[in-house]
Amino acid sequence: MNIPNLNDIQKAAEIIKPYIHKTPILSSNAINKITGGEIYFKCENFQKVGAFKIRGAVNAVFSLNEKEIKRGVATHSSGNHAAALALAASYRGAKAYIVMPETAPEIKIKAVRGYGAEITFCKPTLKAREDTLKKVVEKTGAIFIHPYNDYRIICGQGTAAIELLNETGKLDLVIVPVGGGGLASGTGISVKSMFSETEVIGAEPTMADDAYRSFYGGKIFPSVNPQTIADGLLTSLGDKTYPIIRKFFNDIVLVDEDMIIEAMRLIWERMKIIIEPSSAVPLGAILSGKIDVKGKKIGIILSGGNVDMEKLPWLVSH
Amino acid sequence: MNIPNLNDIQKAAEIIKPYIHKTPILSSNAINKITGGEIYFKCENFQKVGAFKIRGAVNAVFSLNEKEIKRGVATHSSGNHAAALALAASYRGAKAYIVMPETAPEIKIKAVRGYGAEITFCKPTLKAREDTLKKVVEKTGAIFIHPYNDYRIICGQGTAAIELLNETGKLDLVIVPVGGGGLASGTGISVKSMFSETEVIGAEPTMADDAYRSFYGGKIFPSVNPQTIADGLLTSLGDKTYPIIRKFFNDIVLVDEDMIIEAMRLIWERMKIIIEPSSAVPLGAILSGKIDVKGKKIGIILSGGNVDMEKLPWLVSH
Repeated sequence: MNIPNLNDIQKAAEIIKPYIHKTPILSSNAINKITGGEIYFKCENFQKVGAFKIRGAVNAVFSLNEKEIKRGVATHSSGNHAAALALAASYRGAKAYIVMPETAPEIKIKAVRGYGAEITFCKPTLKAREDTLKKVVEKTGAIFIHPYNDYRIICGQGTAAIELLNETGKLDLVIVPVGGGGLASGTGISVKSMFSETEVIGAEPTMADDAYRSFYGGKIFPSVNPQTIADGLLTSLGDKTYPIIRKFFNDIVLVDEDMIIEAMRLIWERMKIIIEPSSAVPLGAILSGKIDVKGKKIGIILSGGNVDMEKLPWLVSH
Repeated sequence: MNIPNLNDIQKAAEIIKPYIHKTPILSSNAINKITGGEIYFKCENFQKVGAFKIRGAVNAVFSLNEKEIKRGVATHSSGNHAAALALAASYRGAKAYIVMPETAPEIKIKAVRGYGAEITFCKPTLKAREDTLKKVVEKTGAIFIHPYNDYRIICGQGTAAIELLNETGKLDLVIVPVGGGGLASGTGISVKSMFSETEVIGAEPTMADDAYRSFYGGKIFPSVNPQTIADGLLTSLGDKTYPIIRKFFNDIVLVDEDMIIEAMRLIWERMKIIIEPSSAVPLGAILSGKIDVKGKKIGIILSGGNVDMEKLPWLVSH
């Protein structure tokens, strides 16, 4: 399969429509005043499982034929993809096998279990996760669904930008957080295919700057032990997401931890909505002066709202 | 003026319409599953100034004639009414004089000042607040707008329930937090006038139980030094709000602090919206088993979303 196009993403949108929320798009007079821009926030924090991840997971699960789905699906994840895949599998009455690090937060374990998935715990290292997943797949015959380096996932995640632009019309600029690049690459395809003049910019934590280095370095430079409060953005670009981002993105900008926290708190206080730190990186890029939005119409995808309420970043010393 | 009726509240709704947000009504599958009810949350946390208080303040300010409004308006408040009155006055280009305790949070002082109001600080006692307000009114000639014991305020606050019921249709039950009774009495009139069979129940912190004692005791028993995290509900019923609540309410139930905190956290975590502790008291009443909602359609007014992000109740020892 070649790089997906807008048509592929529109097909994904049709497939997933009955299973996801059409999330609202919100604006804040206060934040517009502070930034000088006209910002439209696509609120995937209100999405099922509290994050955009359900879009890709449902699309991937519903792309499997009857014979395949009987085998079940499997993945390793300590985050939103695990819950999303578990829920998506349940929509087809299929089994989901999730490998989670034994250090995963209790609330995430409960969520995955609540959707009826079977959890296998492992040591909290990438090697242990991959080894354990391999064993689970060998034993069960389940089909591995990668959290982002998969065209079915990318197409699913790209549907959020279509919904955004269908409602706002043409924008000057869309800013999206970049982790492994599933949401970013899907957004890039959707935005540039719908409005070729609209700029697409990735916002990435300075402390997990692999996409920035890869985008400007001309090949994939993975993250090495990244440390950021934006815990959804720790992963590195894959061989499927990287070329799409290279092709469709105008820029990737880096955002320091203190600006991510400031942006997150601003959205909590002014918009009265809960977003996770990863969602705050695009506004952080604006607040830190890395992106000039004065007089422009901007779309920002708020990727999710799953936060540990015991550990709010402005109450924790770094 | 007699007790206001639905017609008076509908008039208020017309007057304030251009100046307020029509706030959304949200539901949560997760919370419905936990409670067994079908709950519609009227989200006044998304209202201007972050609380329903703007409704009453705008109605009161726009009820003044040209001669009166030139004198300006005045009140004493450390909370949402201060910001609401300041903003409402600015809509008529009028002066607002606000008496605030010198201990008021910096963020509230900044908000009031941001709306162009003139602040006079006083010692943090009710007597000091009343004495200081008296002096301010004598000096400026401004018109005192009481935060709740005023029919113009009550009519303004009652508009939220009209919006709720216009959208949901008939409900079995509406639950509203009770502080001084402005929101509660306005809600009582609206709900019972629109659907006489719909029950109206007030939810009040056990630690600030004056409305409960007054409702069942047959006369006003003010609170004495109440201590609750629901800081919007510290005030006692007034001679205008008490008779309305006695007439229109089916019950008032008390909610302990731990259940208020649990309900607040549940709404934050499941609905991804920020509400202040006062807003959580009605759901707290359900969670604690004080109100049986199984199989019922329930409306809850989420009164506001102004929270000190440094002091979340589940992170503070009591």
